[in-house]
Amino acid sequence: MKHFLNTADWSRAELQAMLDDARAMKKSPYGDALKNKTVALLFLNNSLRTRTSFDVGARQLGGHAVVLSPSGGMWPLEFEDGVVMDGEAEEHVKEAAKVLSRYCDLIGIRAFPKFQNWEEDRKDRILTAFAKYADVPVINMETITHPCQEMALVMALQERCEKDGRGPLDGKKFLLTWTYHPKPLNTAVANSALMIAAKFGMAVTVLCPTEDYILDERYMAQALRDANANRQAVTITHDITQGYDGADFVYAKSWGALPYFGNWGPEKRIRDRFRHFIVDEEKMARTNNALVSHCLPMRRNVKMTDAVFDGPNCIAYEEAENRLHVQKAIMKALAT
Amino acid sequence: MKHFLNTADWSRAELQAMLDDARAMKKSPYGDALKNKTVALLFLNNSLRTRTSFDVGARQLGGHAVVLSPSGGMWPLEFEDGVVMDGEAEEHVKEAAKVLSRYCDLIGIRAFPKFQNWEEDRKDRILTAFAKYADVPVINMETITHPCQEMALVMALQERCEKDGRGPLDGKKFLLTWTYHPKPLNTAVANSALMIAAKFGMAVTVLCPTEDYILDERYMAQALRDANANRQAVTITHDITQGYDGADFVYAKSWGALPYFGNWGPEKRIRDRFRHFIVDEEKMARTNNALVSHCLPMRRNVKMTDAVFDGPNCIAYEEAENRLHVQKAIMKALAT
Amino acid sequence: MKHFLNTADWSRAELQAMLDDARAMKKSPYGDALKNKTVALLFLNNSLRTRTSFDVGARQLGGHAVVLSPSGGMWPLEFEDGVVMDGEAEEHVKEAAKVLSRYCDLIGIRAFPKFQNWEEDRKDRILTAFAKYADVPVINMETITHPCQEMALVMALQERCEKDGRGPLDGKKFLLTWTYHPKPLNTAVANSALMIAAKFGMAVTVLCPTEDYILDERYMAQALRDANANRQAVTITHDITQGYDGADFVYAKSWGALPYFGNWGPEKRIRDRFRHFIVDEEKMARTNNALVSHCLPMRRNVKMTDAVFDGPNCIAYEEAENRLHVQKAIMKALAT
Repeated sequence: MKHFLNTADWSRAELQAMLDDARAMKKSPYGDALKNKTVALLFLNNSLRTRTSFDVGARQLGGHAVVLSPSGGMWPLEFEDGVVMDGEAEEHVKEAAKVLSRYCDLIGIRAFPKFQNWEEDRKDRILTAFAKYADVPVINMETITHPCQEMALVMALQERCEKDGRGPLDGKKFLLTWTYHPKPLNTAVANSALMIAAKFGMAVTVLCPTEDYILDERYMAQALRDANANRQAVTITHDITQGYDGADFVYAKSWGALPYFGNWGPEKRIRDRFRHFIVDEEKMARTNNALVSHCLPMRRNVKMTDAVFDGPNCIAYEEAENRLHVQKAIMKALAT
Repeated sequence: MKHFLNTADWSRAELQAMLDDARAMKKSPYGDALKNKTVALLFLNNSLRTRTSFDVGARQLGGHAVVLSPSGGMWPLEFEDGVVMDGEAEEHVKEAAKVLSRYCDLIGIRAFPKFQNWEEDRKDRILTAFAKYADVPVINMETITHPCQEMALVMALQERCEKDGRGPLDGKKFLLTWTYHPKPLNTAVANSALMIAAKFGMAVTVLCPTEDYILDERYMAQALRDANANRQAVTITHDITQGYDGADFVYAKSWGALPYFGNWGPEKRIRDRFRHFIVDEEKMARTNNALVSHCLPMRRNVKMTDAVFDGPNCIAYEEAENRLHVQKAIMKALAT
Repeated sequence: MKHFLNTADWSRAELQAMLDDARAMKKSPYGDALKNKTVALLFLNNSLRTRTSFDVGARQLGGHAVVLSPSGGMWPLEFEDGVVMDGEAEEHVKEAAKVLSRYCDLIGIRAFPKFQNWEEDRKDRILTAFAKYADVPVINMETITHPCQEMALVMALQERCEKDGRGPLDGKKFLLTWTYHPKPLNTAVANSALMIAAKFGMAVTVLCPTEDYILDERYMAQALRDANANRQAVTITHDITQGYDGADFVYAKSWGALPYFGNWGPEKRIRDRFRHFIVDEEKMARTNNALVSHCLPMRRNVKMTDAVFDGPNCIAYEEAENRLHVQKAIMKALAT
């Protein structure tokens, strides 16, 4: 039994097999791979796209999704073994995971960080505890990484590269650019874009305002290992020109600076100086006619101009649509 | 591709065809018109009847409903084009509509007015924006009108008139009477009852306490156009006797006075003087043995006495049940 | 038409028939007993296990569950007949029940007590009103009793007794022991365990700290009637040794003291003196190698030690799983 917690746990070949299956199902959507099976979708944070695409996907494969969204967040769970549970926690995560495993065949978990203490958030405790105790496969529906989004992005890149005759992803320059946003956001999609680009053979450049915006070493190191295995580099730069020059793909995302977790006032003063990191036509002109994308939702004309977003090289809607297809492939791979 | 936003966008013949289909499905409920199709139901306000009837209806036609109810209301959406989205809005409605269109085959929207500024509420921005940007048909599940309720009402009237030998709706006197309620309510059902009665050939009388309670000119004008085309009149009166005398149908509804949107204190002082607008046996005795109804929920003995509501001429339960049948017909008409 | 409100309304033979069907479906889960049928699940309180198991169960029988959970609790309902509804209540329960009955084939209700006034809570008004007015069968999904949990418990006991060669339940000593919990909890599961143990022929001992923790006379009397019919006794004790000595089954549960409803401060001072009521290995050593269980969620090492809970005699996971199977049998029995 295997979980889908992070793409780092899977080989490129295994992921590509799921992507190929997703593309096949994009053409022929209905099947019975999940017949008589139920996927529990546990949302500790709001969702529109993820909730809809998993539900529709399960149904298209003959299965059934049960959406669980405890109002006011999860009732407090205990994670440690052997504890006297006389505090806030009403239930040990072991029981929650084991009982859901008796009713369902797959469990999806969305649990965002709390944004107060990165050392705590980076443990990804709810996801890892469910994975530890569940007797059925667990899927990460976004915690501190977002592997489903990664798969949707790679699928969109591969589709468009084929269609445009741009050739394989290997050796392409993938720019992950931080963009401005008025609030500090989750680093999950940034961590994920970084890792999946490296895994699929691209040379990754991370463009961010200052050293404070470098992503967690766990994900930087994973990307570096994968890049090296593919004889590629991971480059960090704070220079916009260096970032965009010759890029084949531009992925835009805003995120909060890890050293300021729980102390966002000072971070905002730094962040506010970097509104010019917006993806616009002038910057895009430096690229190799790059494709561009962003996981939605996106603030228009703050992260990316309308001209770029609505232009012919933007694949954000394809990426969003592909969530449906890749998630079907993931559920199928885990459940059968 | 056609949306179901308002009955004014559809001809009487088109609506009647849906009503006929609804009656056929009331007898024979199961089919596969929505096989492999998904309807997204976006509820920005609570719902019991609408949520249940759409979900059950989709299922009875072989389809699948995904219920989306962002807790705490919708995350803030941007509606204008070209805006720099550095304020509250996290997503442009364009993306929300286009992405849902990639996952689903129909989109239902419930978005009540905010009751602070009628000039703003009457733009019906969420519904119209989804209709503009969605690539699949959009259904109004109650915003500032409630066309599904209109259809259910007409179906109930036609069924009962046939059963009782009352003849066709054309030329019948339809009384829409304001009733008391301790709070100011949405005008949606009142707007809708007014329009659909005129469209189906009835002479409409609107009975309300004062000029302040006259409905928005958009709906008054639409009703007048339809009434004139049917050689009927739309009459406004504040006189209870004039309203009830000779009525064939009495539709009870409370609503807030438009000039007092956002300034409800003074309106309440006016409203409280009109508790006697309750539908009771004495008033009903003036009618032509009228049928009577109300969209639920309804405060008993405030809007209508138990004697009238539980009496043989009340068709409120039939109207409520018909929501299921007409919505199936609407989904079927849009999706196929 | 029969409701499933309390096991007291059903004979032991009828309940056993449902349990037998549940065991058959545990081996062969899929069927079409609910084909084209919908069960409305009205949750006025949060749920994970109940919501999931009913939804999955309906689906496995070819049916469909619609989950209704009014955010912020139910909109205020009126229960009395003939009232002028000019207070808080927006709808009479009669309309809510009758309209849901037009859309659905079964209605499940979860409505916990309010913990302010036991005289009021013990009327179980929401459940009984739905049962009175609904035109389809109503199922208690936990109010002031929890009959679905009862059925799951008996099924788990019967399964394990058979497997271990422990013989029939009749004449076995069933210990229902109060345990500590930092908050006052619902008495529903305690009431239910008491009644079902007596109904299935066991000698029931209720072990609780003081007279204040004796359960409501309605349930004590029901258990006594059933025990007497089975030539068994119901014993109340505050002595731990007497409770555990020779017990065949130990069921752990915490609950609040009825005389302190709405006045929990003084009750907490009493309760806090009885932390030693925890189910531990020392106490279990006094039993007849008893099986032990608890409805989940459970605070580990507060209500029961890890050693007991994770030990071979604990059947809590089986009981939790059996919720799925018994609820399918209940739905099937009511709907067909």
